[in-house]
Amino acid sequence: MNRAIRFLPIFLLCLACAPAPPGGEAAEVARMDWALAIHGGAGVPLGSLTETEQEAYLESLERALSAGAETLEAGGSSLDAVEAVIRLLEEDELFNAGRGAVFTSDGRNELDASIMDGATLDGGAVTGVTTVKSPIGLARLVMEQTDHVLLAGEGAESFAGTQGVERVDPGYFFTQKRWDTLQRVLGAEESQGGGTVGAVALDRAGNLAAGTSTGGLTGKLPGRVGDTPILGAGTYADNRSCAVSCTGHGEEFIRRSVAFRVATLVRETGLSVGEAARKVVQDELRQGDGGLIAVGADGDVAMVFNTPGMFRGAADSAGRFELGIWD
Amino acid sequence: MNRAIRFLPIFLLCLACAPAPPGGEAAEVARMDWALAIHGGAGVPLGSLTETEQEAYLESLERALSAGAETLEAGGSSLDAVEAVIRLLEEDELFNAGRGAVFTSDGRNELDASIMDGATLDGGAVTGVTTVKSPIGLARLVMEQTDHVLLAGEGAESFAGTQGVERVDPGYFFTQKRWDTLQRVLGAEESQGGGTVGAVALDRAGNLAAGTSTGGLTGKLPGRVGDTPILGAGTYADNRSCAVSCTGHGEEFIRRSVAFRVATLVRETGLSVGEAARKVVQDELRQGDGGLIAVGADGDVAMVFNTPGMFRGAADSAGRFELGIWD
Repeated sequence: MNRAIRFLPIFLLCLACAPAPPGGEAAEVARMDWALAIHGGAGVPLGSLTETEQEAYLESLERALSAGAETLEAGGSSLDAVEAVIRLLEEDELFNAGRGAVFTSDGRNELDASIMDGATLDGGAVTGVTTVKSPIGLARLVMEQTDHVLLAGEGAESFAGTQGVERVDPGYFFTQKRWDTLQRVLGAEESQGGGTVGAVALDRAGNLAAGTSTGGLTGKLPGRVGDTPILGAGTYADNRSCAVSCTGHGEEFIRRSVAFRVATLVRETGLSVGEAARKVVQDELRQGDGGLIAVGADGDVAMVFNTPGMFRGAADSAGRFELGIWD
Repeated sequence: MNRAIRFLPIFLLCLACAPAPPGGEAAEVARMDWALAIHGGAGVPLGSLTETEQEAYLESLERALSAGAETLEAGGSSLDAVEAVIRLLEEDELFNAGRGAVFTSDGRNELDASIMDGATLDGGAVTGVTTVKSPIGLARLVMEQTDHVLLAGEGAESFAGTQGVERVDPGYFFTQKRWDTLQRVLGAEESQGGGTVGAVALDRAGNLAAGTSTGGLTGKLPGRVGDTPILGAGTYADNRSCAVSCTGHGEEFIRRSVAFRVATLVRETGLSVGEAARKVVQDELRQGDGGLIAVGADGDVAMVFNTPGMFRGAADSAGRFELGIWD
């Protein structure tokens, strides 16, 4: 508990008050050289984690946030930072992405991911991959090496075979915890949900990028595609507005094109990134649907959720480095 | 040529001038009891069809438009009308959907479809099905029989197996014309593209629906998912604004969440359905990307494209019944 308590008050303060630039107008918001936000899924009922589990989550988020922040501080691209963050979270079985992916109703792991470049509106995504260690890495190759945006199932696996990405036996994605969750869900108990991972970044060149990776919904039908691999639904980035990564009840995020919606509100209505994110998450989605992270072209960060908690973190060139789970 | 020439002048006139209601203000636009628009794909270079081919396309569109119009005239739902139209076009090998689907780079047919209910924002979609005679019918079952929005590949096939839908041997989708096109595309010639089918409808109960079905892009990588099965990209319906079905360069429609974009413009900026459709197709997409059809909650219809032509038709409760291919 101690780390969350240590960080959260500072964190909420930072969300409310952007620092005034040195010598500038108090009303003028400083443009960050770089900024980064990450999430590890919404949901997380209060009291659902032991202190040890909570420490483990925060340590994992801290490691991922540090990796992304170092990339951006060193002048790396927002795409590289987003990919670096998500690769680390995919390797950690704590999160429902990569290694820790949940199971479908027939006891398999089918993984989805997407990445988008705000400078070009180019994007890449995969859905239903079963042997690719890093779905976010494969999504980036779809963006960079094909004329397509989204590859599914066997086609995505065949493409992986042409790209020399690291493959694993499907058993790599077996974790006892997720298997036990499937058994509870098949017994008609509620899924804990959550655990999708994502990152949004602004780099020193002023480019935005967003990415998201997930194992989807525990007990989902085989072949189910949620919002994560869909640009506009779970992931969006546009240098003219912001970069967004979502987590939650994917079907609802698809029906409402949530990531694109937030970006459009920022671009066209004059709402700040935080105002747009809150409008969509608090007013337009249903309570309990999930949350999102977003970063604007000025480095303004929003992390909003209508669930009890969302694993998250934010860092920027002004020295911010914070993690959080609950409000 | 004669039928297109016969219809087009009336058609363009109707798009420009909505009729004044009997005894009402001239500025007030009549609300239609029902309205329907359909498309059979954008592209269609001028002079690319013989007179016989043109007649065949128009006859097929007329048959589909009549089926949808009869459904709506009789008080059927917009969902039923949309499904009826698309099922007929899927059975006709002239269009790139169902029977006439184009081939992937490895010589298979992988079909996509989606349908959306504007009253509930519910939707269903499938991608990469290979043995389902009517992908739009399966998409509707995803909407009505599952908690999901989109099923892909083998998972969608397995779901089809539980629903008793009509299955066919993959050879059903072999047509010589599409095979020859694949050979040309593999030889690096341009694809003719187009041929996706779609429908949007307003019913007597005031409910909107949209649907789209396609074989995708000739020579696409196996597993490629375009905009057609993605709610928000290729298909969208919301009773508060309009119903939209798109056709064209799918990746671009995904990157710009085109169908959702049109619906949001109508709902939030006061643009008419026609103005919103033109803004997106003419100003935001690139020339040659494609087109879309839309119908508003008042029965106002738009059919806009930035390609030389788009197979299309419109009908409504005021007696309109028109077909078109080029401007």
